[in-house]
Amino acid sequence: MAEGRGRTRRQVAVIGAGPAGMLLGHMLRQHGIDVVVLERRDRAYVEGRVRAGVLEQGTAALMARLGLDGRLKREGLVHSGTKLSVDGDTFRIDFAELTAGATVTVYGQQEVMKDLFDAAEARGLDMVFDAEDLRIEDIDTDTPCVRYRRAGADHAVECDVVAGCDGFHGVSRAAIPAGVLKTYERVYGFGWLGILADVPPADHELIYCSHERGFALASMRSETRSRYYLQCAVDERIEDWPDERFWDELCLRLGPEVAARVTRGPSFEKTVAPLRSFVGEPMRHGRLFLAGDAAHIVPPTGAKGMNLAVSDVTMLGEALVAFFAEGSTAGIDGYSARALARVWKAERFSWWFTGLMHRFPDTDPFARKMQVAELAYIRGSRAAQTTLAENYVGLPMGPA
Amino acid sequence: MAEGRGRTRRQVAVIGAGPAGMLLGHMLRQHGIDVVVLERRDRAYVEGRVRAGVLEQGTAALMARLGLDGRLKREGLVHSGTKLSVDGDTFRIDFAELTAGATVTVYGQQEVMKDLFDAAEARGLDMVFDAEDLRIEDIDTDTPCVRYRRAGADHAVECDVVAGCDGFHGVSRAAIPAGVLKTYERVYGFGWLGILADVPPADHELIYCSHERGFALASMRSETRSRYYLQCAVDERIEDWPDERFWDELCLRLGPEVAARVTRGPSFEKTVAPLRSFVGEPMRHGRLFLAGDAAHIVPPTGAKGMNLAVSDVTMLGEALVAFFAEGSTAGIDGYSARALARVWKAERFSWWFTGLMHRFPDTDPFARKMQVAELAYIRGSRAAQTTLAENYVGLPMGPA
Repeated sequence: MAEGRGRTRRQVAVIGAGPAGMLLGHMLRQHGIDVVVLERRDRAYVEGRVRAGVLEQGTAALMARLGLDGRLKREGLVHSGTKLSVDGDTFRIDFAELTAGATVTVYGQQEVMKDLFDAAEARGLDMVFDAEDLRIEDIDTDTPCVRYRRAGADHAVECDVVAGCDGFHGVSRAAIPAGVLKTYERVYGFGWLGILADVPPADHELIYCSHERGFALASMRSETRSRYYLQCAVDERIEDWPDERFWDELCLRLGPEVAARVTRGPSFEKTVAPLRSFVGEPMRHGRLFLAGDAAHIVPPTGAKGMNLAVSDVTMLGEALVAFFAEGSTAGIDGYSARALARVWKAERFSWWFTGLMHRFPDTDPFARKMQVAELAYIRGSRAAQTTLAENYVGLPMGPA
Repeated sequence: MAEGRGRTRRQVAVIGAGPAGMLLGHMLRQHGIDVVVLERRDRAYVEGRVRAGVLEQGTAALMARLGLDGRLKREGLVHSGTKLSVDGDTFRIDFAELTAGATVTVYGQQEVMKDLFDAAEARGLDMVFDAEDLRIEDIDTDTPCVRYRRAGADHAVECDVVAGCDGFHGVSRAAIPAGVLKTYERVYGFGWLGILADVPPADHELIYCSHERGFALASMRSETRSRYYLQCAVDERIEDWPDERFWDELCLRLGPEVAARVTRGPSFEKTVAPLRSFVGEPMRHGRLFLAGDAAHIVPPTGAKGMNLAVSDVTMLGEALVAFFAEGSTAGIDGYSARALARVWKAERFSWWFTGLMHRFPDTDPFARKMQVAELAYIRGSRAAQTTLAENYVGLPMGPA
C-alpha cells in the first residue's frame, strides 16, 4: 500500500485523506481509475479527529453506492426531525413530514473515516500517509505533478488530474494563482466549546438552542454517547470550564424541561472551535480541482461541513469518471460552477442558521427580538419549517 | 362636525386622523360607540401625504366590512404576484398560487384617506382637525382626558378610552411612563428616494430590485401613474437628482430587460425617506391604547406599514366593541400581546426583506454573496417563495 520511491504515473492524485479525499478515492477506484491518496498525517491522526456527526441523505446515499454503508445502516441513528429551543421553550421540525420522507443519519465522521480506511486496503485503493512537504506543480499543463517527501526520500506523482481535498490549511487552494482565486470570508466573533461524554443523550433528536446567554446544542454520537456544545468566546480557556461548569451552563441554556433529561458525566473530549464562513472561487484551475474544506468552510450550525465535501466529490467523481472513461470534458469543465451553486446555498443556510441562533457581539435588544420573532414565525409557518427542513436534509445536487 | 368648545364626554377619543385613527373611528361608529377623532393637522395635509400603496388582503377586507370599498374595488389594482430582480435578472413570486389564492391590492394611502374622510361626514363620525397642543391625561384612571387648543380656545374630552393613532412623532406613545415603555430600534444607514410620474408603469406588478449599486423598486399607483424608488443616502440632496439622473440610475439597477419597458416622464413628487425599524412595548397602558406608527415603524420594503396599522386597529376595534357592548375586558387586556405578536413578525419580515435587497455600509463581498445566494435559493425553492408570499399578503391576525 505504500508508494514506491521516486517517480510514478497515476491518472489521479488525491491530496488529503479526509472524508472528501477518501470518498473520491473510492469512487474513482470503483470505476477502475488509477488513483492514489496522499496524506501528510498518519492514519491514526486522521481517524481520530472529532468532527461532524450528521449525514445528509445524499451522503448516506454515496456510502451506499460505494457499498460502504454496512455499519452505517446498523449503527447510524436515523433522525426524522430536530428540535429548536428558544429561551427554554422547545418545538420540533419534522423533516420527514415536511420533505416527503427525507431524514438525516447521526454517524460520527470518525466512523465514516474508519469505514473508508478499512475498505481501502481490501479494494486496493492506494494511500500514502506521512507525505510531507506536499507541492503541486504544472497544473496549467495536462500533466500536473505532486511532489512530497516521505521517510527522508523525495517522491513525485505525475498524473492527469490533481484533486485537492486537503482542507482549509492545505496546499491545494494555495496552488491556484492569487490573481485567479477570489475569496470570501466571514469570521464570527465566537466559538463552540464542545464535549463528548459517555452518557445517554438528553433527547433522541438534536436540540438547537437559542438563549439570551448564547447558543447551545444537544447532540449525540450514539445512544450512549452525548455531544454537547456551548457558544463561547473564541479565546475561551478550556481550563476555565471544568465539567460541572459546563453542565450547569448547558442546563441553564436548554431550560428546565430539557435540563431534567440531561445525564451528567465525565467528559473525555473538550475543545474550542472558532466559527468561520469561507469560499474560494473557482474550485478548478487547469488540472487542479478543489473539494470540501480546501475550497470552503461553513460554521457548524446545521452540520453542513462534511456533507458539502461529499456533494463536491460526488459531482467531481462523476465528472472525472466521464473524463477518463469517455474522454468527455463537459463534466470537469462544469464542475466548479455546479459545485459552487450548491456551496453558496449551503453557505447561506449555515450563515443564516448561525445568525438566527447565536448571541453576537452586536446583538442588541432589537436584534434579539428579530431572532425571537423569526423563531416564532418558523414555529407557526409550515413554509418556514420546510425551508429549514429541506436545507437540513440537503438541497438537491443541481443539474450537471 | 366641529367639536364644541369646552368640556365634552365621549366613550373613545382617537388621536390622529391617519389610516389607523380613521379606520378605528369608522369601526367604532359602525357599532354605535361615541367616538371623536382628533387631528392636529388639517384634512388637506393628511389627505395629501404620499405614503404606502399596497393593501394586504386583511386591509381590503376591513374596508369591505366597513362598506368603504366601493372605489377600492373599482380602481384598485389586484396583484397576484410580485417580481424580484437580482442584478438585472428577474423572477416572479406567485402569491395566489403559493397561498391558496391570496392577493394584494395597489391603492394609494391617499385614496384610502379620501374614502375614509368622505364617508365620515355621511356617517356622523365626529372629527376635529387643527387640534393643537394635544395632551393626554389620567390614563391610569377610568376617565382619561384629552386636552387640546383649537382656534385659540381650550378643549377637554373626557372619555373611557384613548386610542393613540398619531404616528411615530405623536404625543400618545410619550404618554406612557418611561419606566413602563420599552423601545427597540434599528436605524438603517440609507433612505429611499421616491418619485411619482404620470407615465405607465414598467410592469403590471411591482419589481423589487437587488443590485450591486443599491436597491430599486418599480411600483405604481395606477395604470397611468408610476411610483419608483432608489436606495440613496439618508442625507441625499433632492436637487442632486434631476429627473434624467433618476431615470438613468433606475434603468441601470433594473437592468436592460426591464429598463426597455420604463417610460420616462417628468416627476411631480420627489422625496427622500430614511429607513427605520422601531417597536414600543407594551401597546397599552391603563386606558391608553396605541395603534399603527405610534407604536411601531417598519422600513417600507414589503409595504407593511399601513397594513400593520390596520391589523392593530382591527384587533383594537374588536376589543373595544366587546368592552363597550358587553363590558368584557378580555379583549382590551389581551390587545397589546395579541397585536405585538403580529407586529414582531411583520417587523421581522420587513427587516429581513430590507436586509436581503439593500446595499448596506457593511455589505462586503461575502455579505453580497449571501444576498445573491438567498435570492437564488428563493428562486429555486417553493417553500422559500411561500414564506415570502405569505408574509407579503399578510400573516393571519392570530388568536384573540
